[in-house]
Amino acid sequence: MKPKKMLLIVCDGLSDRPVKQFDLKTPLQAARKPAMDALARNGVSGVMDVIAPGVIPGSDTAHLALFGYDPYKVYTGRGPIEAAGAGLQVSRGDVAFRCNFATVDPSMKVVDRRAGRIRSGTDQLAKAVSGMRIEDVTVLFKEGSEHRGALVFRGPGLDHRVSDVDPHEEAEVLQAKPLVPEAEKTARILNEFVRRSHDLLKEHQVNVGRKANGLSLANILLPRGAGSVGELEPLSERYGIRCAGVAGVTLVKGICRLVGMDVPDVQGATGGLDTDYKAKADAAMRLLETHDFVFVNVKAGDVAGHDGDFGMKVQVVENIDMMLGMMLKDMHEDVVVALTADHSTPVSIRDHSADPVPVAISGGGTRVDGVREFDEISASTGALGRIRGMDLMPTMLGMADRARKFGA
Amino acid sequence: MKPKKMLLIVCDGLSDRPVKQFDLKTPLQAARKPAMDALARNGVSGVMDVIAPGVIPGSDTAHLALFGYDPYKVYTGRGPIEAAGAGLQVSRGDVAFRCNFATVDPSMKVVDRRAGRIRSGTDQLAKAVSGMRIEDVTVLFKEGSEHRGALVFRGPGLDHRVSDVDPHEEAEVLQAKPLVPEAEKTARILNEFVRRSHDLLKEHQVNVGRKANGLSLANILLPRGAGSVGELEPLSERYGIRCAGVAGVTLVKGICRLVGMDVPDVQGATGGLDTDYKAKADAAMRLLETHDFVFVNVKAGDVAGHDGDFGMKVQVVENIDMMLGMMLKDMHEDVVVALTADHSTPVSIRDHSADPVPVAISGGGTRVDGVREFDEISASTGALGRIRGMDLMPTMLGMADRARKFGA
Repeated sequence: MKPKKMLLIVCDGLSDRPVKQFDLKTPLQAARKPAMDALARNGVSGVMDVIAPGVIPGSDTAHLALFGYDPYKVYTGRGPIEAAGAGLQVSRGDVAFRCNFATVDPSMKVVDRRAGRIRSGTDQLAKAVSGMRIEDVTVLFKEGSEHRGALVFRGPGLDHRVSDVDPHEEAEVLQAKPLVPEAEKTARILNEFVRRSHDLLKEHQVNVGRKANGLSLANILLPRGAGSVGELEPLSERYGIRCAGVAGVTLVKGICRLVGMDVPDVQGATGGLDTDYKAKADAAMRLLETHDFVFVNVKAGDVAGHDGDFGMKVQVVENIDMMLGMMLKDMHEDVVVALTADHSTPVSIRDHSADPVPVAISGGGTRVDGVREFDEISASTGALGRIRGMDLMPTMLGMADRARKFGA
Repeated sequence: MKPKKMLLIVCDGLSDRPVKQFDLKTPLQAARKPAMDALARNGVSGVMDVIAPGVIPGSDTAHLALFGYDPYKVYTGRGPIEAAGAGLQVSRGDVAFRCNFATVDPSMKVVDRRAGRIRSGTDQLAKAVSGMRIEDVTVLFKEGSEHRGALVFRGPGLDHRVSDVDPHEEAEVLQAKPLVPEAEKTARILNEFVRRSHDLLKEHQVNVGRKANGLSLANILLPRGAGSVGELEPLSERYGIRCAGVAGVTLVKGICRLVGMDVPDVQGATGGLDTDYKAKADAAMRLLETHDFVFVNVKAGDVAGHDGDFGMKVQVVENIDMMLGMMLKDMHEDVVVALTADHSTPVSIRDHSADPVPVAISGGGTRVDGVREFDEISASTGALGRIRGMDLMPTMLGMADRARKFGA
């Protein structure tokens, strides 16, 4: 049997709870979504605990699970994900951090955790600190959007179990402390990095200019969220497949890179409500020609959920449906297409919840059950039953005739 | 989002199998139960393997699972549960036993394992043995109903892995043996306790009186079911919730106490067919005002199942339905209410079985599926799918907006 291609579309936070003011419907139940319903009608549906029943998934842990990894084993902190998202290579043995450019006064008290939400010049500031050596460790730093950046330490004997330097409030800069004896060297290097970054940044010409313009100085870097990639084996090696990801959000791009996907920049894919759905659909269809597994993340549903905006979320469903329609129109029937969410973000609670998410899979060798609509309740009656996030990737591989045999 | 309150109603042994003489209906399918059906109609249903498929739950292991504990990790024996049920505090490091007051002849052969089902005076006999010191171990003993009692050893270096003293038949009193080398001390102390209890009890005035009245002497204590509480972290600490339990049966009360619930005595809650349903409903509703999580156990269904009495079991369903109706009438819509059983006790086999149990949850943030009746078959088509007993507590916490996030 020729192995089939796979397309996974994850609608961030799209799953919801019934809302009283809207006839106890969820946004998915209230929206017009012919493409999603067609996908459900032509395949199997189910519901999915992305991590486990009663565990609220973060977008980071959720995506790791959806790609087949046990987040309890591979997730140590946000640092490596942000660093990979920013475009830094993170390898086994590295320790990575998220950072803010911040403003400290001469007594080393943080007076602005975001350096006036600095918008330009961070690339030059980044160049000033990246590449330094501390003991036998190489330091890599890359700016992100606005005041954000990512930091990677590379060298022998590093351990991610250190406390944050960022005080998370306007207070004294913290000294990183080892949380286990093995992390003593990492804490020492981290504190030295913060000291040196302050020395390098405070007199930097970007800050000279900011001072002249009355702007907050970006005169220190505050690392937090230390993590390492541990035993994360890329999807390509694990399953022998070529993978690509289309995402607008840095966090999701970072996870894609960590699991070994090609992550092209898609013009107009913003991760916001204004994302260019057609550009995403086109990019995904193009990538399906050259890759075995293509992943698409659409963030907008989560944004509408956090805003508590039912009408907006219905609109997002309909936008995504349009995108899906464009893709399905030209889809080869042999492609295994899965549609799901990484977690629920109910408009009634404006935050992630532990409620399971719907999932529908069609194409390739999938069975066809009696489910006719794609929503939280209809999906629960489908032939997939109730699965876990970590089951999704093996299930898709099975339907794509790429699963491995155990036994004879 | 404001966290919501939770009510869990466990109908002991209520789940069943179809019975040929009654149109292949189960007692739940045959009964009129408007309140249970309303609960199912307004929420989500599913079926639950309380321990795992094909494992017959005991009421003790089942309740541990329903409270979110892995019984394979925390359950070591009935002793600590019976001791907690009798009102003895059982702490980490203690070893606890169930005991019978029994009659031995001068050759130490057991001639009556229940000392003529002794009904009075055991409180005085208990006082005579409780509080003694053996080596560096303190001995606590409390009488239970009739010939029953509970024993706790408290001191350093104890281990529950010892064999029973109770021969479980009319035979020579057994010498406790260590089942692992670490339990040698415990076995030695247990044997010494049995010897001393015999010395103290045989001449006790209660037995002098019984001898005069021609009654069997309660002249020895026969411990069995050694166990310890191990790593059992109370629900209050684990989830940060205040918990209370309403139960008539000592065993269930004991589990409630072990997991850190307040367990008030409810007048008329007997654990039998004659239990006062209204008293239980009132107690639960009162406790919901002061506690975050309230648990109610109704034993009668299990009794009818063990009796193999279909009509009686239908009657129990209708009685519980009346109790549930009283509670739902005044229930705030934000309370997450779950209704289930701890195991099946089919009238056709007059014992526990491994068949999954129905579960329905409504209120709070629950979704609403298409299930319209509460029974073993209807529930299996619901949006909850098929879960495990250990999933119930996290699932309820999720619906009550008390779950924890993993990741960001």
